[in-house]
This record gives sequence, structure tokens and C-alpha cells, in this order.
Amino acid sequence: MKPPGQEEFEASSAHENVPAGELDSGPGPGPSPDDPSDIDCRELGVPKDPLLFIQLNELLGWPQALEWRETGRWVLFEEKLEVGAGRWSAPHVPMLALPSLKKLRSLLAEGLVLLDCPAQSLLELVEQVTRVESLSPELRGQLQALLLQRPQHHIQTTGTRPCWGSPHSRKASHSEEALLKEQHQNPLRQKLPPGAEAGVVLVGELGFLAQPLGAFVQLRDPVVLGPLTEVPLPSRFFCLFLGPPTLGRGYHEMGRAAAVLLSDPRFQWSVRRASNLHDLLAALDAFLEEATVLPPGRWDPTTRIPPPKCIPSQHKRLSSQLREAKGLSAPHPAPDEDRHRHGPHVSSPELQRTGRLFGGFVQDVRRKASWYRSDFSDAMHPQCFSAVLYIYLATVTNAITFGGLLGDATDGAQGVLENFLGTAVAGAAFCLMAGQPLTILSSTGPVLVFERLLFSFSRDHRLDYLPFRLWVGIWVATFCLVLVATEASVLVRYFTRFTEEGFCALISLIFIYDAVGKMLNVTHAYPIQRPGSPAYGCLCQYPGPGGNESQWTRTRPKDRDDILSMDLGLVNVSLLPPPECAQRGGHPRGPGCHTVPDIAFFSLLLFLTSFLFAMALKQVKTSHFFPSVVRKVLSDFSSVLAILLGCGLDAFLGLATPKLMVPREFKPTLPGRGWLVSPFGANPWWLSIAAALPALLLSILIFMDQQITAVILNRAEYRLQKGAGFHLDLFCVAVLVLLTSVLGLPWYVSATVISLAHMDSLRRESRACAPGQPPSFLGIREQRLTGLVVFILTGVSVFLAPVLKFIPMPVLYGIFLYMGVAALSSIQFMNRVQLLLMPPKYQPDLLLLRHVPLSRVHLFTAIQLVCLGLLWIIKSTPAAIIFPLMLLGLLGVRKALEWVFSPQELLWLDEQMPEKERSIPEKWLEPEYSFSGSDSEDSEPMYQPKAPEINISVN
Amino acid sequence: MKPPGQEEFEASSAHENVPAGELDSGPGPGPSPDDPSDIDCRELGVPKDPLLFIQLNELLGWPQALEWRETGRWVLFEEKLEVGAGRWSAPHVPMLALPSLKKLRSLLAEGLVLLDCPAQSLLELVEQVTRVESLSPELRGQLQALLLQRPQHHIQTTGTRPCWGSPHSRKASHSEEALLKEQHQNPLRQKLPPGAEAGVVLVGELGFLAQPLGAFVQLRDPVVLGPLTEVPLPSRFFCLFLGPPTLGRGYHEMGRAAAVLLSDPRFQWSVRRASNLHDLLAALDAFLEEATVLPPGRWDPTTRIPPPKCIPSQHKRLSSQLREAKGLSAPHPAPDEDRHRHGPHVSSPELQRTGRLFGGFVQDVRRKASWYRSDFSDAMHPQCFSAVLYIYLATVTNAITFGGLLGDATDGAQGVLENFLGTAVAGAAFCLMAGQPLTILSSTGPVLVFERLLFSFSRDHRLDYLPFRLWVGIWVATFCLVLVATEASVLVRYFTRFTEEGFCALISLIFIYDAVGKMLNVTHAYPIQRPGSPAYGCLCQYPGPGGNESQWTRTRPKDRDDILSMDLGLVNVSLLPPPECAQRGGHPRGPGCHTVPDIAFFSLLLFLTSFLFAMALKQVKTSHFFPSVVRKVLSDFSSVLAILLGCGLDAFLGLATPKLMVPREFKPTLPGRGWLVSPFGANPWWLSIAAALPALLLSILIFMDQQITAVILNRAEYRLQKGAGFHLDLFCVAVLVLLTSVLGLPWYVSATVISLAHMDSLRRESRACAPGQPPSFLGIREQRLTGLVVFILTGVSVFLAPVLKFIPMPVLYGIFLYMGVAALSSIQFMNRVQLLLMPPKYQPDLLLLRHVPLSRVHLFTAIQLVCLGLLWIIKSTPAAIIFPLMLLGLLGVRKALEWVFSPQELLWLDEQMPEKERSIPEKWLEPEYSFSGSDSEDSEPMYQPKAPEINISVN
Repeated sequence: MKPPGQEEFEASSAHENVPAGELDSGPGPGPSPDDPSDIDCRELGVPKDPLLFIQLNELLGWPQALEWRETGRWVLFEEKLEVGAGRWSAPHVPMLALPSLKKLRSLLAEGLVLLDCPAQSLLELVEQVTRVESLSPELRGQLQALLLQRPQHHIQTTGTRPCWGSPHSRKASHSEEALLKEQHQNPLRQKLPPGAEAGVVLVGELGFLAQPLGAFVQLRDPVVLGPLTEVPLPSRFFCLFLGPPTLGRGYHEMGRAAAVLLSDPRFQWSVRRASNLHDLLAALDAFLEEATVLPPGRWDPTTRIPPPKCIPSQHKRLSSQLREAKGLSAPHPAPDEDRHRHGPHVSSPELQRTGRLFGGFVQDVRRKASWYRSDFSDAMHPQCFSAVLYIYLATVTNAITFGGLLGDATDGAQGVLENFLGTAVAGAAFCLMAGQPLTILSSTGPVLVFERLLFSFSRDHRLDYLPFRLWVGIWVATFCLVLVATEASVLVRYFTRFTEEGFCALISLIFIYDAVGKMLNVTHAYPIQRPGSPAYGCLCQYPGPGGNESQWTRTRPKDRDDILSMDLGLVNVSLLPPPECAQRGGHPRGPGCHTVPDIAFFSLLLFLTSFLFAMALKQVKTSHFFPSVVRKVLSDFSSVLAILLGCGLDAFLGLATPKLMVPREFKPTLPGRGWLVSPFGANPWWLSIAAALPALLLSILIFMDQQITAVILNRAEYRLQKGAGFHLDLFCVAVLVLLTSVLGLPWYVSATVISLAHMDSLRRESRACAPGQPPSFLGIREQRLTGLVVFILTGVSVFLAPVLKFIPMPVLYGIFLYMGVAALSSIQFMNRVQLLLMPPKYQPDLLLLRHVPLSRVHLFTAIQLVCLGLLWIIKSTPAAIIFPLMLLGLLGVRKALEWVFSPQELLWLDEQMPEKERSIPEKWLEPEYSFSGSDSEDSEPMYQPKAPEINISVN
Repeated sequence: MKPPGQEEFEASSAHENVPAGELDSGPGPGPSPDDPSDIDCRELGVPKDPLLFIQLNELLGWPQALEWRETGRWVLFEEKLEVGAGRWSAPHVPMLALPSLKKLRSLLAEGLVLLDCPAQSLLELVEQVTRVESLSPELRGQLQALLLQRPQHHIQTTGTRPCWGSPHSRKASHSEEALLKEQHQNPLRQKLPPGAEAGVVLVGELGFLAQPLGAFVQLRDPVVLGPLTEVPLPSRFFCLFLGPPTLGRGYHEMGRAAAVLLSDPRFQWSVRRASNLHDLLAALDAFLEEATVLPPGRWDPTTRIPPPKCIPSQHKRLSSQLREAKGLSAPHPAPDEDRHRHGPHVSSPELQRTGRLFGGFVQDVRRKASWYRSDFSDAMHPQCFSAVLYIYLATVTNAITFGGLLGDATDGAQGVLENFLGTAVAGAAFCLMAGQPLTILSSTGPVLVFERLLFSFSRDHRLDYLPFRLWVGIWVATFCLVLVATEASVLVRYFTRFTEEGFCALISLIFIYDAVGKMLNVTHAYPIQRPGSPAYGCLCQYPGPGGNESQWTRTRPKDRDDILSMDLGLVNVSLLPPPECAQRGGHPRGPGCHTVPDIAFFSLLLFLTSFLFAMALKQVKTSHFFPSVVRKVLSDFSSVLAILLGCGLDAFLGLATPKLMVPREFKPTLPGRGWLVSPFGANPWWLSIAAALPALLLSILIFMDQQITAVILNRAEYRLQKGAGFHLDLFCVAVLVLLTSVLGLPWYVSATVISLAHMDSLRRESRACAPGQPPSFLGIREQRLTGLVVFILTGVSVFLAPVLKFIPMPVLYGIFLYMGVAALSSIQFMNRVQLLLMPPKYQPDLLLLRHVPLSRVHLFTAIQLVCLGLLWIIKSTPAAIIFPLMLLGLLGVRKALEWVFSPQELLWLDEQMPEKERSIPEKWLEPEYSFSGSDSEDSEPMYQPKAPEINISVN
């Protein structure tokens, strides 16, 4: 046995960026993407033996009508034939009875073991196998005929993933071509990687045998054994266990044991290198050494365990074996390996300080320049088309919603049109120039909040907003360039989860608060008419007592209202509704003329409907209904669909709900402003200097918003190959802030959620996978083209105005509430807040809770809550505009926490600050996985496409 | 080894009713309720050995500061000490490594085994254990001192179930009393049953030992070993495994293996009867024979499996062992045992036909008479008080909602007041006389539907409703008495799941349809004012042109509306709102006078709010927040709370929503009717004969509604001791129908949901339970008092009218929608409908799907859907009144299904009709459980308190 060396193990877990070439194109250190056994949740690279498909054929019907029937199959997990239902069971972890393994061992020890057998066909194989002394020639003939008999396979003609329509199963027909056709049409075959081999296990009870017959054959060259396997793969292993009828299902269980053994990569690895019976038995014993035993009393052995999310690394098994043999203690993963998701930016080369002015920026430009050509050639994949469609819709929805809010916040100084235009220009420019072109630029929550504060400040002080804002933009660009020059981006190493969560929670709460507040404003604008409320009654009064009267009565003498008016003795007034009254030249008079009934509650209904519908659609992804493609579409487009539903409802009832204000022509929303902002306007000259103060705050905000998002996007679990560009990204943002300020367009920074969705839509996954195994994540199609096309399309959408004016504002408020709630619930902080309400007995089995006392966890959560409360209070006072400074204060609080919590506790609750990382004793990093995976996010695989709903900068 | 005999196994699985005595009072065949190991999901009665608490004390800190520390404990499942977090892990299924079991075996074989050891104290025990040749006297002394050292226990001072507040853990202080106090305060101790014994396993690495030291002691008499165990239980077993420091955690794993072995009831049973080392090793080998092996490659051994819902029966293990020894094949459960939940009524003595007139009725009376005294004495338990409160609230809610609907359906011929009165009278009478006094009588959906049909029929034909209804009631009572006389109730044996589900689905759909329809009616009654809608404007006109004018202007000269009116030149009209106008003696004139704005949408909001709130509260039960008591209350009172919320919202806004109509005095809702219905009224005489026809239909309906509910309530899984009374119940219902018809009150039959809730609130559960084990169900407190008190309170609530008039109707409609949806989703039929939408890959691992081809399952579902569609069509046509006949038709369809489906398929899809039950081959009854328990309702334990939301007769 030669397990891979220590060096290989270390290398594969180091997670260094591959310097050149795409992962699946070169022979580099990456794994072959086609071998599903090669990829597990934690690391890449496992023994290179071909994948084995194992099939159990059972002899049934003794003594009347003997036939072979496939009753089980294994690739990674077991699938059992449900005889009654005529379908394969769900893949599950195989469970064996210990006695059957022991019986198997003794049968192997006594039976025929042919290693390196040269047989070239089934016939030769059968002859070799039946060459046993104990068999009479007559029996041998009978047995050979039996072994050559064609087995009944159970082939489901539908793919198992994704599966369209209902399945129907077919029995093999008995013509040769039909069989071949069926074997080739088998959906399982498409999933198995090229080079896969088969193993066949034949078991059964045979009355004419006096004693058990066991054979284990490893073929020198894999041979296609005709109809023996359901997939036409060459077989490498052949096992035969026949014997006189016994009690129970002894042979069945023994066959299962043999199949499970063969499906174990470690056993396979050993047997492929075995030279004699002793090696074979040693491999079986090694299997038993590692086996887990479940006690009989508390566990029903017929239970089927679904495939775990994360199967143990085969490397670990081999290396632990090696260590054990060398007399070392059990291996502990290095801190870097276990915790790299929290500190991926600690050791990345992008964040090394060069010490020169613009040093990091120059490095970024150099690094990205070498990839620039491939940034376009890598986009040549059909997947990119669907990514463009999806991200385009998300961007447009976002532009509409933020445009509406910005218009509200700035009294029309910015609006939907400006936001479309700005998004398109800034986004496209960023995609062409930036260090991380997967980033999608957008309006974000924090900048929106700041813009609102800035606007109310300038309104309160009677400043000309846009010129003032231009100066703020000029200063922000300057400050950001200083940050680029001084390589300030290396400070993102100090952004721990504490900072990210504080930032994200605050922004989410502002979103929720604003959405609800806006909604309440609508109900105030359209008050509810309670019984006894004064707003009742409205009359239409005409100018003179008789002036238009004759003409009016002549034109519409039969009008019901008029008849009533005349009946009542009214001369120059009528009961016409206000719009019609004004149309006829009258004046609506009365306390009820300005109230529009039903709007308040209908708006509330629209608000709730779009919120709940978006929430529900998001959940569809994890439901069990519909094929996964449908679910993914419904879930990905949840907000678009919710907006459409809201608009449909509104259009159906035709009520005068407040609608999104969009200009009908291509001109700024605010009347009387041009596309270029004059630098002074009505403001005094010194304001251009004074603007440096708010600009400083905004620079801090933009820096944090941009870099927190960048840190998330460049995490190691996304396996990006082309590296990040923190300095270059910030430079681009600075230039774009300047540009948009000059044009009077909104400011843009990286938007976490859309960017993550963008990356998600460009995931590269292993295609072939065994039943029960989720597809493996290989990386992201890193290129600039999808983003560019998305923003060009967004720019063209400026002309969507005739459609957009049908969108009711309450629907947009509902979507914003949804975004806020989704963002809030996606952070671990909220899980810990939930723990406060959970009795310990019902708490999920989080790794965190296994290692940190509950009281300490609660203390940490409470401190976060207090920080959040303080931030909220500051935001609500007149000092609100300094809240970016308070975000910086979070870093200080985090530093102070090191006096309260031990490094071990902080490692679990937050990540370590860079300097301290090395001091953690290894015993705290014990790798344990919780079983109930969905509850314990800590044991989730690194890459969680669905988790970060709107993670940090809510957009 | 002497496993219990075959007979005992057979007896315990026969599920016969225990003839006399309450389960926990007598020494009968029932289990001792206090022994948690005794009770599992499937059957009662397992070996009678005391429960064993096992504690693992580990020697830590070698070589500097040796101390014993408790690091694990076992009762049924394993709890591991999370050292970092300082808390016990969640209980989980213990997993062992096979090598550690082997090492344990060899250490036992070489070490000291003392069976039947007479030691009386820890000191004696330690002396005996250390009397080993290999130890020098000096070492022996050191070792003895070490063994007498007090260990560190981890005692959590909060109970684990239910748990109030956050836990805080304490380290043992070192004074003797403190220790004793702590031992006694240990919450675990309260949960362990009296008579429980302890087992202690001590392991550790000890540098001064040259070779491993192993000892296994079984004490003759259990001895309290002082501070050794965290609970002050007498110890029966003592294991010691010490040795020189080795690699890994060898001794820890060996200790765990020993503890898991001891926690196995079968091993325990054998060891308690072992007489020498050979017996001990044989027991260990037997354990291994039964152990389940998980292969290493596809399973992470550090995974923790949560306790399964259903642990395998210890009886089965013992009996299978016995069978194997006797050379029989593996046991298959008899059809009765495995399927009794579906056909519990097949063999029950209540349903044997006597062949005499009123034979079954007389038998019922005799059977119940013998329990009559205990039916009152058994109610003396505090649990009954909370049951009364809960069921009272449910009954009142029900009476209000049904009263409102009945009032709607019959134009006030019945109403809330009648329903209160009728419920109280009928319910109390039924509780006093019926065969199954746990039943709660109520208005039910089917009867409501029939009543509505009857009312519209009599309105369409201009009949006097109440007298006509009286004659229907007279005939119904007659027919029902005939059914009682002819023992027709034995026909309930033919009510299969197909019938129950068809009935329930129809009623649920009617509920949903009606709730939504009523809601839409509200929006029609209060139309929405769209722009341009004619309903605009309203004036207040005063009688004469000048009549009251002077007086009027004098009294309120400053009124804003009046000033406006005068300003407009209005003389005898004003803009006063209609109510004020009418108050002042004017007449509202104009098209807008009858529209009330905002009511439509507000009603819709109330409707949706109460529906969604009730649904959400129902889900709280399965959430992880709050202690289980709080969750249970929130969930049980979900509809009450939803109604309160709706009323609160309504009162807060003060809008004129349509409210529940209740009479202000104690008199019938309909003005002009007395409490006694005159037998003829305005109807022709022959109508009293013609009433027999609808009465026949109603009799069928009442029979089916009553008996389907009765079948569900008397299912074997509820373990009722006092038997059912199908004939007696029907007799009572017939008498009460007569009575309520005479009084003009609604008709009542058994209401499934409230009755099930009643039984649920009277559950008897084992109090003591091991960590990880759900409390076991022992039976129901069968008595008549709770129901009686509930109905007396309901009767008193007739005077609640001043409160009830604040309930808005939309809220009640919302609750009804909730009831319909909940009832619909609780039947298996809906699960199968969902399967139609699920790709096979995502379908839950239902037993059904393992045994029946998917296409056949879909065919069965489709037939049910077609039947439902036909029923719906009939209900919607003028022939609606014959729909009870169609329900009978379901029985015919079910019979016809036997030509389409094989008996095996019908066994899984439905249950068998009685005659065919015996013909099922046993191999179809293979007992397998799905792992993901929540998905597979088939593998759920029999008694599902939360499952049947509103199961059959929606009430």
C-alpha cells in the first residue's frame, strides 16, 4: 500500500491561486472535473483510480424459474431495487450487518481468488471461475449455462437530474440490439465519467450445490461482460457467491457486503494493487478497522440514511493511515485550512503592502492586464447568455426600485431615468476597467441613506443641491485616490465578521424601517374614512349662478346626478366627481373632495402581497415540487415576478394608487436642469471647500461599502483564478463618482447581492455525478463580457418609461421590505439572536455551540445588539450624517472585544484579527460535522449559492 | 440466555383491549409507565431489568494534575461533554469504531472479571479491583488513592424538558454536603425512574502502569458509590480500563465502547444473567452480531445522528434471536400487527354483529355501564382542568363561527345564540349518555352544507322552514333508530381510507369555497370606488324648505359643513354624512349615500390576517423557539388568538365592518319565533310525509359523518381501555336530532378535530424519560366529566352576546378558510396529489412508494380526484341535495377499485375491505422505516397528536 505522500496532502489543502490557465483546460494541480469521486466538499485531489460502478445481480426463483435480476447498484451510495414499486430507491448510505462481512471474509479466504485474471470475455471468465475441484463436470456445465444467462435489469429511462415528467420503467426485452440500445440509453451512463469501470457481484441460492462457492476476480484488462451490467462499461471486478439455500437472505447480504467493499475507494485502491489473497484480506481488514459501528438496541438497521452533505476526505483517510503507521498522533487540520473562509484575505498576495505610492494599484493593473484577453474569450459559453438575461432583469428591477427611492429622497433631483443612465454608464465602465469584473455596480443602501441625509441637510440650509453634491463628489474622488495611493485597501484584513455583520444589520434595518415608513406615508396621504370623520361630501360648483347653466343642462339633460341636483333645488352646483367637475369648468367644493377612498388599504394589500409573494417564491428553490430548473427560475426571478403580480393586481382593479414617476422624454427628472451640473449654482463659493467634510464621511462609507463587498466576492471558497483587484476597484469607483457627480447621476459602488447572483449564474460544476452526490463546484467563469452586455442592455432600457409608469409605489416598497428582511436573515448574527429565544434543548447543533459556552455566545450577541442600537440612535439624531464614522468605530469595538473574549472564543464567534491568527492551539479546530446539516451553517460546504440573500450592501 | 418466550411476544403485539383496570394502576399486561426503556413506538413490554444510567469518567491531566472528569453519559442515547462550551451535547445515537470494540474484548478477556461481586462500598470495590498480581503494593496504593479521588461532574441545573430561561452550569464544589445536594438536584435524577441503577466506566492513561489494566465488575447488590456518579443512584456495574499512555484517544474510545455495550438492553440482560467470563464475551459477540456497520468511505464517523423517532423493538431482537436459534426464517409481522391503524375496527368486539334487534345497542349499554362510575372518578387529575379550559375555548370559537355561518345560511332561522344553546344541551347530554364520552358534539361541515341546501330548497318552494325542518328531524331520528336496531353500525368496517378521504376532501373544499365566496360577497356589498364609478356624492336633504332651518342653524351655527352649505347657496340641504343626517331628521340623497369606502379592502385584510396568523401560530408548535409549553399554548389556541387579533385590528381602526349578529336578549335570533317549533306552521299536511325523503339523505349523511369520526376516535393507536360504543353513540345522536328539531336548534354530530384535541389534552405520558427519548404515550384519561363541564360552561356563555357583537365577519371567514385548508392538508390524499407535482428524485421516501409503482399511485390519486370532481359537480347542480347518496357511492367505487388494483397495491394505497384482509402475502409487509421521518408519514408513530388538524368532519 502506497498512500499519497505527505507533500501531496499538504499541497492540495493550501488553496493557493492557480497562476495561469483555466482550471479544466490545463493539466495543472486542479482535479479532473469529470471524476465525481475526485471531488469532495473540502479539498481536491484523491486517488486517481477510475470510478467504479457496482451492480448486484441476484439469482431468484429457485427452483422453478431461475433468473438473474439486478437488485442493487452502487457508485458512491447504495440504490436498492424496490421490487414492488419497480423503481430504484433514493440513494442512501449503505449499511451492513457485521456477520455478513465476516461470512464474506471466510468465503473469500476459502474460495477462488483470481487477481490479474487475463480473461477477455464473459465466456472465458465463466470458464475460469467454474474451474473448481468440488464441482462435477455436469454441475459445471449447468452452472456455466446459468452464469451466461442474461440478467433482468431495471433501467429507468428518465434522467435522475434534472428530471422532466414522470418516469416509466421498462423491462429489458430479449433481443440483442434492444439490449444494447437500452444499455446505451441508460441515463446513468451519461452521468458516469469516461473511463469508469464496472464491478459485478453475482449471488444466489442454488439447490444443486453441496457447499458454498465463492470467487473474486480482478481482471487484468477491463472487459465488457455483455449483458451482465446495465451500463455497457468494461468490468474490472467480478464476484460470485453461490451456495445451497440457507436461512434468511444470507447471500443477498453477502453480495451487498462485497459491493459496498468494492465501492469503497480505499479498498478499491488496495485491491487494484493486491497481488495475492493475503493482500485482499488485509484490505478487507483495513476496511473493518475504519468502519463505524451502530449499536443494535438504539438503531433500526433497516433505516436508510440519506447521503451526507459532506463525505469525509479520502486524503484524510489515507494520510491518517500513514501517520498511524508512522506512530504520529491523529492529524489536525492547520488553522488556515479549516478557517480560510473567514480569513481568505489574510494571506492573499493582493493585500500585501508594497510600500510604494500607488504600488498596489500598479500591481493590480499588471495582474489584471495579463488576463485581459481571456476576460473576453472565456465568455464564449452558452451559460453566459442566461447569466446576462438574469442579471439584466435583476439590474433593471434594482434600478427601478432604487430610482424610485432616490427620486423620493431627493425630491426628483435624481430619479428612475438618472438611475438607469448612471447604472449603465458606471456599470459598463467598471466592467471594462475594474480589477474584479464580476462585480456589478449599483446604487446601494448605505449610499442611498447618505444621499438622503445630504439632501435634507442642503434643503434645511437652502443650498442648491446638485452643485453642492458635485463638490462632494469631487472631494470624494480625491480622498479615494489618496486611499488608492496609500494602499489603504490592505486594511480590509481588519474587516472581520463582526464589522461586516454590524454594517449589514444596520443597513437592513434601515431598509425595513424605510419600507414600512414609506408605506405608512401612503396611508397618511390617502386617509381612511372612519365613521364620523369630517372628510365627507363634495359638491361641484359652477362659476356663475346661471352663466353656463342653460348650456350645461342642454348638453347632458339626462344625467342622473344633474336630475338629482335639480330635484334638490340646486342651481349652480352638482354632485359630479371632482375630475369630471373640473373638466366641465366647475370647482369641486367640500371637505371630501380631496379624499380618494380605498387607496390606503389597497396600497397596504399591494405592499403585503408583493412582499409575501417574493418571500414565498424565494422559498420555492428548496421545495420539492417541480423540476429543479423551474424552481431555480421562480426563485431567481422572485422579485421580478412579485413586481409583475403587484402591477397586474393594480391594473386589474384600476385604482388610482400612487405610481412610479418617470419622465416621458429623455430628459432629467427634475424640470429645468441640464445633463451637466454647474459647479456653483446658487451656492456661495466657500461651500466647495466645506463640501470636503461630508465628502470625508462619504469616502469612509464608500470605502467600507465597496471593500466589504469586494472581500465577500473574493473569498477563497469561490475559487477565483484571476485574483482580486482591491486597489484598482477603488480607483474605478473614485473616477466614476467624479463622473456621475458632474452629470448629476447617482453614486455607485459594488452591490453584493447582484454580484453574488452574477457569480452564481456563472458557476462551473462537474457534469457527471453519481446518484446521491451533489454536483461539485469547479469555479466561476471569470470574464468581463456578461457584465458589459448587461449594462449596455440597461442603458437601452432608458426608453422603458412608458411601461415603468404602471408600477405602483407600494409594490416597490414591498420589494424593499423583502430585500431588507432577506438581507437581515442571511447573516449569522441573526442566527445567534434567534439562539437567545431558543431553549438549549432545541438549539441546532452548531459547531459554535460545541466549542463556546452559551453564555459567552449570548454576551457576544448582546454586544452586537448594543452596537447596533447605538448606531441606530446616532442615525436617528441630527448627528446622523456622521454615521460612516460610527461604522469605523465598529472596528475599534471589535479590537476591544479581545480583552473580553479569549482568542479561542473569538475564533469561533468571529474570525481572528490578522496578527493573532497563529496563536490558536490546534485542538480547538477539531473537524466535526453536525448531522442535521440544514441547521448548522458551520458545517455547510464552503460555497453556498443560496445563502447570502442580500448580504452586506443591500442593493 | 433466556429470551422471553414466543407467547409473550405474540400477546404483546395483539393490541387487545385490556378488559379492566386503568393501565397504570394494576399489575396487568400493560407496561410499568415509569420505565422509559420499557416503552417504544410499536409495542409495550420489554425485559424488566432496571434502567441503567451509565457514566464515563476519564482520567485527565497526566502527569501533572490528575483528575477524574465525567466526559460522557448514556441512558438510551449518548451525551458527550462539550469541553469548550461546558455543556452536554444533544443526545445522539452512539457510534463506535470497530477496533475499539475489539480492543475492549481482548482487555476483558485478559483482565479481571468479577461477576456477582459482594462489595458493599466504593472502598471495598476499589480494593477488590486493584487486587491484581501485576501491581506492586506501592502502585496499588497509588491506584487506590486515585480511584477514591472525587471526579468532576458536569451538572446542568436546568431541566432539559421543559426548560425555562437560559441555562447556567456549575462545577461541583468540594464540600460533601454541596456534592450531595448537587447530586440530588440534578435534573436528570428526576427523569430517571425509581429503581434505576448506575454503571460507571473509568478510563484513563496512567504513566506508572507498565501494562493495561482492565476490570469488569457486576455487583451482587447495587451500591451507591459515593461521588463517583453525578446522580446518587446505586451502581450495578463498574468498569475500569487504565494503561500506559498510548496514541490517540484509545482509552476514551474503549470506555465509550464499554458504556455503549452496557447501555444496550440485550447486553445488559445477558450480563445480569452471566455466570462467567465466557458468558460475558458471548454477550459481547452477540452485540457484534447485531451491530450495523457503516462503511468508512462514504460516512464521516464524527457525524452525530439524532435519536431516531422509532427505535427497534427489543422484543423483536430477542424473538428473532430465538427464531434464529430454532432455525426459523426471519419473523414477519402479522398483517394485523403492521396494519392495525388502518383496520382497527375489523376485529374489535364492538363491531361484531349480534343478529338481534338492538343487540349491539344493548351490548354497548352493558359495556359502558360497567365503566360509568370510573368515568367520573377517573377525572380527578389536574390535567383535566387545563383540558376543560382548552376545549371550552375551542368549543366556543366553533359555536361562534358555525353560528355565524348558520345564521347566514338560514337567514337567521338559526344563529349564534341557538348554536350556543344547542351545543350546550346536546353536548352535555351526549357526554352523560354516549358510548364514547370523549367525543365532542358540534355543528359539522357536512350538516351545515345540508342545512343550507334544505333552507334554499324550502325558500325556493315557499315553505315554512322550521316546521318542515322539524319533520325532517323526526324522520331522521326514526331512520337512525332503525339503523341502531339493525346494527347498521357494523358497516363502518367498510369505511376505508378512500371513503374517509373523499368525504373529508369534499367538505374541506366546500369550506374553502364558502369562506372565499362569503368574503367576496362582502366586497360586493361594499363596492370599491374606482375612478369614474357612478357611486359618488351624497347630500343631506331636510324635510321642508325652511321648516326646521331656523332651529337648525340656531343650534349649530358654526358647523363647518353648514357654513359651506350656506356659502354654496344651499338652503335645505347640507353635506352632513348620512348617519348624522338621519339623526338630524334629514334624508340622505345621492348615489354615494350607500357606499361605505375602505370596508372592502379592510375586510379583505382582516380575512387574510386572521387566516395567515392562524396558520402561522399552528406552525409554532414545530418551531424551535420558546419552551415547549409556550409553543403548545400558542399553537393550540391559534384560532382563538387569530380571532382576537382580528377583533383588535378592527376595533383599533373603528371601521364599520360587517359584524357578527347576536341577539341582545336571550331569545331566538329570528324575530317572532318561540323556543318550540310548531309541527305544521304554514305548510300543507302532506309535507310531513314528504320530509321523509330529505330525511333519508340527511340520515345517510349523519350516519357517515358520525361514524367516520367515531372510527377515527376509537382507533387502536389511542389505546382506549373502555371501548367504543358505535350503536349507543348513534342512538344518542338520533335522540338529540329529535330534541334540537323540536327546539329549532342546529343538528349536532361528533366533531373530529375538537374530539381529537380533547383526547390529546387528556393524554397520559410517561413522565420519566431518558435524554433524547420522547415521552411515551400511555393512554387517554377516559372520563365524562371534562366534556360535561365544557358544555355547561358553553351554556353559560349564551350571555356573552355583548362581547360577541364586536367580532367582524371577515375574521370568522378567515378562520374558516384556515380550518378548510388545515383539514385538506392533513389527509394522505393531498400528499399523493403533491406527488403528482414532484419529480421522482425529490419525492419523500414513503413506504407506499417503496412498494407500489408510481404510475399505480398516480392512477389511484387520479381516480380520487375524479370522484371528488363528480361530487363537486353534483353539489353545484340543482341535484345538490342528493349528495349524501353520492358519498355512499364512494363505497361502491372503492369496491370497484378491486378490479383495477391488486390486493397488495390496495393494502398500501388504502386498506383492505374486511373479507380480503387475510389473503395478503406476508412479504409485502416488510417493516422498513424511512430515515427522514418528517416526510414519511407511514413511518410515524401510531399516535400523532398534531397530525389530524381537522381530519374528517370539518367542524
